[in-house]
Amino acid sequence: MITGQNYIGSRRSAEGSVTYRTINPKLNTENKWECTEATKNEIDEATRLASQAFKTFRKSSPEERAAFLDAIADEIENLGDELIEVYCQESGLPQGRAQGERGRTMFQLRSFAEMLRKGNWMETAIDLAIPDREPMPKPDLRKTYIPLGPVVVFGSSNFPLAYSTAGGDTASALAAGCPVIVKSHPMHAGTGELVASAIIKAAEKTGMPNGVFSNLNSKGIEVGIQLVNDPKVKAVGFTGSIRGGRALYDIANQRPEPIPVFAEMGSINPVVISQGALESKGDSWADTYAGSITLGTGQFCTNPGLILAVDSPELDVFASRLAAKIVEIDPMCMLHPNIKRAYSNLKTEVTEQAGVTMLSNEVPTDGNFADQAVATVNGASFLENPKLHQEVFGPFSIIVKCENKEQLLKIIEGLEGQLTGTILAEDSEIPSLTDVVDELQHRVGRIIFNGVPTGVEVCPAMNHGGPYPSSTDSRFTAVGLHSIKRWIRPISYQDFPMELLPNELKNA
Amino acid sequence: MITGQNYIGSRRSAEGSVTYRTINPKLNTENKWECTEATKNEIDEATRLASQAFKTFRKSSPEERAAFLDAIADEIENLGDELIEVYCQESGLPQGRAQGERGRTMFQLRSFAEMLRKGNWMETAIDLAIPDREPMPKPDLRKTYIPLGPVVVFGSSNFPLAYSTAGGDTASALAAGCPVIVKSHPMHAGTGELVASAIIKAAEKTGMPNGVFSNLNSKGIEVGIQLVNDPKVKAVGFTGSIRGGRALYDIANQRPEPIPVFAEMGSINPVVISQGALESKGDSWADTYAGSITLGTGQFCTNPGLILAVDSPELDVFASRLAAKIVEIDPMCMLHPNIKRAYSNLKTEVTEQAGVTMLSNEVPTDGNFADQAVATVNGASFLENPKLHQEVFGPFSIIVKCENKEQLLKIIEGLEGQLTGTILAEDSEIPSLTDVVDELQHRVGRIIFNGVPTGVEVCPAMNHGGPYPSSTDSRFTAVGLHSIKRWIRPISYQDFPMELLPNELKNA
Repeated sequence: MITGQNYIGSRRSAEGSVTYRTINPKLNTENKWECTEATKNEIDEATRLASQAFKTFRKSSPEERAAFLDAIADEIENLGDELIEVYCQESGLPQGRAQGERGRTMFQLRSFAEMLRKGNWMETAIDLAIPDREPMPKPDLRKTYIPLGPVVVFGSSNFPLAYSTAGGDTASALAAGCPVIVKSHPMHAGTGELVASAIIKAAEKTGMPNGVFSNLNSKGIEVGIQLVNDPKVKAVGFTGSIRGGRALYDIANQRPEPIPVFAEMGSINPVVISQGALESKGDSWADTYAGSITLGTGQFCTNPGLILAVDSPELDVFASRLAAKIVEIDPMCMLHPNIKRAYSNLKTEVTEQAGVTMLSNEVPTDGNFADQAVATVNGASFLENPKLHQEVFGPFSIIVKCENKEQLLKIIEGLEGQLTGTILAEDSEIPSLTDVVDELQHRVGRIIFNGVPTGVEVCPAMNHGGPYPSSTDSRFTAVGLHSIKRWIRPISYQDFPMELLPNELKNA
Repeated sequence: MITGQNYIGSRRSAEGSVTYRTINPKLNTENKWECTEATKNEIDEATRLASQAFKTFRKSSPEERAAFLDAIADEIENLGDELIEVYCQESGLPQGRAQGERGRTMFQLRSFAEMLRKGNWMETAIDLAIPDREPMPKPDLRKTYIPLGPVVVFGSSNFPLAYSTAGGDTASALAAGCPVIVKSHPMHAGTGELVASAIIKAAEKTGMPNGVFSNLNSKGIEVGIQLVNDPKVKAVGFTGSIRGGRALYDIANQRPEPIPVFAEMGSINPVVISQGALESKGDSWADTYAGSITLGTGQFCTNPGLILAVDSPELDVFASRLAAKIVEIDPMCMLHPNIKRAYSNLKTEVTEQAGVTMLSNEVPTDGNFADQAVATVNGASFLENPKLHQEVFGPFSIIVKCENKEQLLKIIEGLEGQLTGTILAEDSEIPSLTDVVDELQHRVGRIIFNGVPTGVEVCPAMNHGGPYPSSTDSRFTAVGLHSIKRWIRPISYQDFPMELLPNELKNA
């Protein structure tokens, strides 16, 4: 049952007077549970408990943390149908998606547990002493990694489970040995509370210190700002808009002791289509991309919002077919009235720019349902107008007809940092693609050949994050097992006695 | 021969009108060569060339970059005695130190070359496709690392070779495939120009693109500020003061596209001495630390500036002996009149604080020679006075007499981030040290047992960097082979054709 209260460690608390309700975007009505925003004192208490918990939690064994993560997955499963129902009521997403995302969330938690048990994730290094080295003896040096301290997690609007309360940021931070304070997302506070209750239950069952996890409700920006400014907080994970991520990044950097902010933000995910692909498989790629652009109502950070190709009659055929196919798909509901409003406004702004032509027919929609669309523009107009480079969060994509390959390369070089880039081409064209690959890979974090950017695999070789502004720190992935590296730092032990070394550095 | 000109790529240039001379700190006179500060246009040209060079350099093979690094080491050796003479004239450091540091510099360059040839430094990951996975096929994903782009290096005052023009930052950035622009240190601009000439020669001999390296003279802060604000610059390496490092960090973070700044800054490097060590080896530790505190005239970032112990008669004996021994050492010259002035002022400020007693007798010194000193204070006074926590850059250390172990732990917990922490103890005390190790390791980047913090080994298990303000990013080391990780970022290739993959990701 949803109480609308915060978790200050394991204690439920609702001392504040600011309350709010989440919205059912399909019905455009408020959900029945009322949430209470965390007060200044409650936030203080949560960071104090986290800081205290860190002293114990940082000494926990990998096996103890693995058991905690597995228990969280189990307790999320135990929430049963209520979680799925509340998720759908707060997001407008279909039940199948809710179930899939719950599965991914549990998979992530269990993957980190498995990694901890395998014990090979830290890239330790051991350099043995050389006592008789000239002119100076070489000391014994051993390097491992230790957790940074309490982490604040800002969940995403578009993944109420997999990148929110017990999502990738929380799972990786807990795996690293960092207590977590979640700033609950106001669009799905009920879902967040249910998941938080599962984490608290798991913490109690596996003997974790009180304060290892807290969940703070918030309607506006004040809770987040206080958290990021708190000296006891040592790192921040964020998934969301460029504006929101950059604001937190700036606050964190201006602290007396700056702390890292790993913000995974916007991206338009350019797709380059070759002439060969247009000629041989134009229709099939148009159909595939109609699906990719509308997947999850276009509300994925990897949504392909920009399609680039050298102009040709085959490109026109592709564009027409994509425009025709996309409007055949049933419009779906967006996550929130604010997101629907932003989508409509941005789509209008982009399509009103000079040189932009709307290709698809208007799709009639009601309420928070999104009218998917495809537009087109020529390369010169795109190059000179930064308004066309912005992310339109939703089922929208713009096709840029480039004059020639040089212009296409220039457009890629001028793009801001992106999460992904995709190349669609025929095998016979591969030798001619080296320059496109070279330019594109230096603007993106993941590059895909003959596929779609939507769908982010959870595995060691995944990189989710790219040059700014797709993320604030391109050197770390936000998805996959290596995301744990965001929350740890190296430390060297010099000439240390075996008994005082961490287990992973002791002689075998 | 020193010309005082800048290197804008391989071209010598001195368009400006601002000139300056370096100082021979031993003689307190100006050196004869006159340097010309880089102009706005020269800086623009250097970043433009670096950006252009990056397009070629990023595609160079590891073997090509290894040959470049080896050639730099060779050309530095070829500078012969002139380099050693100019180094000594600009730093006041003895010839033996100059030769040792030159050796370290060449060793670092060659170590990175060897690492590139071995080819095992990138932590690549390959996840093969599972086409029949349910409900969705798993794509083929392969992860490697690519260079960030042009890097600006700010060398240190105290390592005119090993952490300056061709020092650790430059060597690691070039190894990664990033062009380097050095903002020459005004205290040793002649040394810097000689080394820059060696790098340019090596670049030409090994066919590197023009702009892969530039060296810009600067007297004040303007050149550095323009460089860090330049959109073509993608990362910054800095070794120096907290004030200087933080200023660059703030500029870099406020850019429209923020870039990482790896600043290795100040540290007081706490040393904890146990009662057992005081009783059994107090005299010997006092003698050892008199040497460590005065090594390099105390001008090391790992200089032990803070000694902590629980008060006892044996601590008094240790303190008296350390104070007596330290003044027996011949005073040495500091790097620059400004550094000598700052040392005198800070030492006076610290020793004038309430509760602080100067233990050592006054050492008469002339000019830029430093009067080494040891002071003492009780734990309560230290805890309440942040002025005592600051780094006094030079041969000075303060001994804190703690009331009991609890106070000692509280002092450690309250310290700002440090590069190193050291524990001196007897083997029989090891079981009782776990709490000290636990607190200390969370404040430092390297922890030493029964040794001195001065002396930083170049090897994979070395970590040089710690929590802020000892460095701006505790997740990366500034010394050792892993320092290359500062200049690269991950990228994933999904379902990519073999021919278009980087070599390290191709099927064997």
